[in-house]
Amino acid sequence: MRIILDAMGTDDHPRAEIAGAVEALLESESDVEIVLVGDREIIEAELATYESLPDCLTVFHAPDRVTGTDSPSKAIRRKPESSIVVGLKLHRDGEADAFVSAGPTGAVMATSLFTLRPLPGVDRPAVGALLPTASEPCLLVDAGANVDCRPQHLVQFAQLGSIYARDMMGRPEPRVALLSIGEEPGKGDELTLAAHRLLSSQRGLRFVGNVEGRDIIDGVCDVVVCDGFVGNVLLKFYESVFHFVVGLLKKEVDSATENSLDFEEVFRVLDYAEIGGAPLLGVGGVTVICHGESRPKAIRNALKLAVRAVRADMVGNSARHLAESMDLPSREAS
Amino acid sequence: MRIILDAMGTDDHPRAEIAGAVEALLESESDVEIVLVGDREIIEAELATYESLPDCLTVFHAPDRVTGTDSPSKAIRRKPESSIVVGLKLHRDGEADAFVSAGPTGAVMATSLFTLRPLPGVDRPAVGALLPTASEPCLLVDAGANVDCRPQHLVQFAQLGSIYARDMMGRPEPRVALLSIGEEPGKGDELTLAAHRLLSSQRGLRFVGNVEGRDIIDGVCDVVVCDGFVGNVLLKFYESVFHFVVGLLKKEVDSATENSLDFEEVFRVLDYAEIGGAPLLGVGGVTVICHGESRPKAIRNALKLAVRAVRADMVGNSARHLAESMDLPSREAS
Repeated sequence: MRIILDAMGTDDHPRAEIAGAVEALLESESDVEIVLVGDREIIEAELATYESLPDCLTVFHAPDRVTGTDSPSKAIRRKPESSIVVGLKLHRDGEADAFVSAGPTGAVMATSLFTLRPLPGVDRPAVGALLPTASEPCLLVDAGANVDCRPQHLVQFAQLGSIYARDMMGRPEPRVALLSIGEEPGKGDELTLAAHRLLSSQRGLRFVGNVEGRDIIDGVCDVVVCDGFVGNVLLKFYESVFHFVVGLLKKEVDSATENSLDFEEVFRVLDYAEIGGAPLLGVGGVTVICHGESRPKAIRNALKLAVRAVRADMVGNSARHLAESMDLPSREAS
Repeated sequence: MRIILDAMGTDDHPRAEIAGAVEALLESESDVEIVLVGDREIIEAELATYESLPDCLTVFHAPDRVTGTDSPSKAIRRKPESSIVVGLKLHRDGEADAFVSAGPTGAVMATSLFTLRPLPGVDRPAVGALLPTASEPCLLVDAGANVDCRPQHLVQFAQLGSIYARDMMGRPEPRVALLSIGEEPGKGDELTLAAHRLLSSQRGLRFVGNVEGRDIIDGVCDVVVCDGFVGNVLLKFYESVFHFVVGLLKKEVDSATENSLDFEEVFRVLDYAEIGGAPLLGVGGVTVICHGESRPKAIRNALKLAVRAVRADMVGNSARHLAESMDLPSREAS
């Protein structure tokens, strides 16, 4: 299996990417190969700082780089030689099985949609993000790919999330909830009320009703579905809690206590560097999206997620499951 | 000054209300009187458990009680003798200066709107909620009164929040931000993009642009404006973080460390019981909304907030400020 890693994505590229790739390869089966895509000269200069390197780490040259100031939707035309576009085309053409990038999220999403195409039955591919909870993590869909959704889009997010939770998170019958402002079906905005009605009549989905913001952290569901605007606000807020909480503790406690207690370890579950990457759900390929601030550990974890997604045939399973329910009530209801 | 306290609101009514009222009176100037509204028999039974009581704590009989299963908008007609309806009518009729309740939020809001009426220039009164941050708290508007807002509603939330932050939170020139999914004006959903344009041209408002979920906790603004759906999801999520974080710490650390460190004290800033109540902004009276789970400390703090709102002439200031900007661009733009 061959995984493409965009070597030019993180703020600390290509150092964080290469360190993460080396870590991932040391822990992977021997059939895993990682291809670093990016400026060969820059990548090889960083590789030269290593005393030894795994054989299964190779380089594919892509001279250009998409930055945060580039228009996400125009990256594919304006920067055809960027690591994101070159890497995703390699994946599309079957030269690799998955693509991992910490480059600008919008550009990774837009280019993935354009090159890998949505799966049949999917109008709006969505980002799934793992939220730590008091028990097992909960998958938030959509974490930011789609704002201004229609009700049937939320039904598709529910289906994609449910398939992912079952095949990739070990939840045989995933509990899918709708994020709203009250547990009663009659609570919510227009979008949520309409989505609730559609989800309630949806076949092949274990819909457990509405959850509120306070319920997520209790771990009452495996998948929580919402519009990408709400999901993105919530995800980014959650990400900031870790630093805030650790900061508060360090300010309040004396150094003796601090030395006896590794706060970062205690709150590891809240640290997004641990989670690594978020899958793009509903496209004809495996794209894993990382933070621009990713450290090597996050890159390693994202690469391992990509390997698991390939082994579990995430894309094939999603396509099959979606085809089975092709005459969705949700699609008729638009 | 006379404050009405709904004695039948909390899960532990009237015990939490009475204990909170007694605490508040002990700490207040002598001109403050608190009227407990609710079932006289139940209230007096609880009062009888006190050895001594302040003179300025009185009872006004209201035999009925609004519960979570009552329709919020119908409470005023169906339960005219409930503590919420009786209490708010006393406030409307000038018998009292403010109303505090931990009863069902929807019913308190709807009955406040109906009895106290929106101020001129306000289409949608909104709930303001204080969010703890790394520096001073930030006011979130709307925290849940209005779902499915139009852009000009968000402008009104910004105005109401700005007035409140200046007069009640000691921020002479409040920085008002719009909650979105990117800092750039071009990031967001349709509502946010349109609201951004209106806010940018708004007179008398220090609009600092978009903030993301992760920025709130850094304390980069005094007021953050959003739709009541997003605001309510975020507020409820934030409220749950305190218990989650304290729970994580207690699970992870040994008892020796735990004894040397009062986690609840360290994270007091995250504890919503400390904050007490959320003001309803933009109505012709002072309504402070508390959690149903409020403990006496929260009731005390909500009563003290009501006292401060009356002393600061929150309603008069809001009306004057709104009248000054009566030909709002935001109102023309609808």
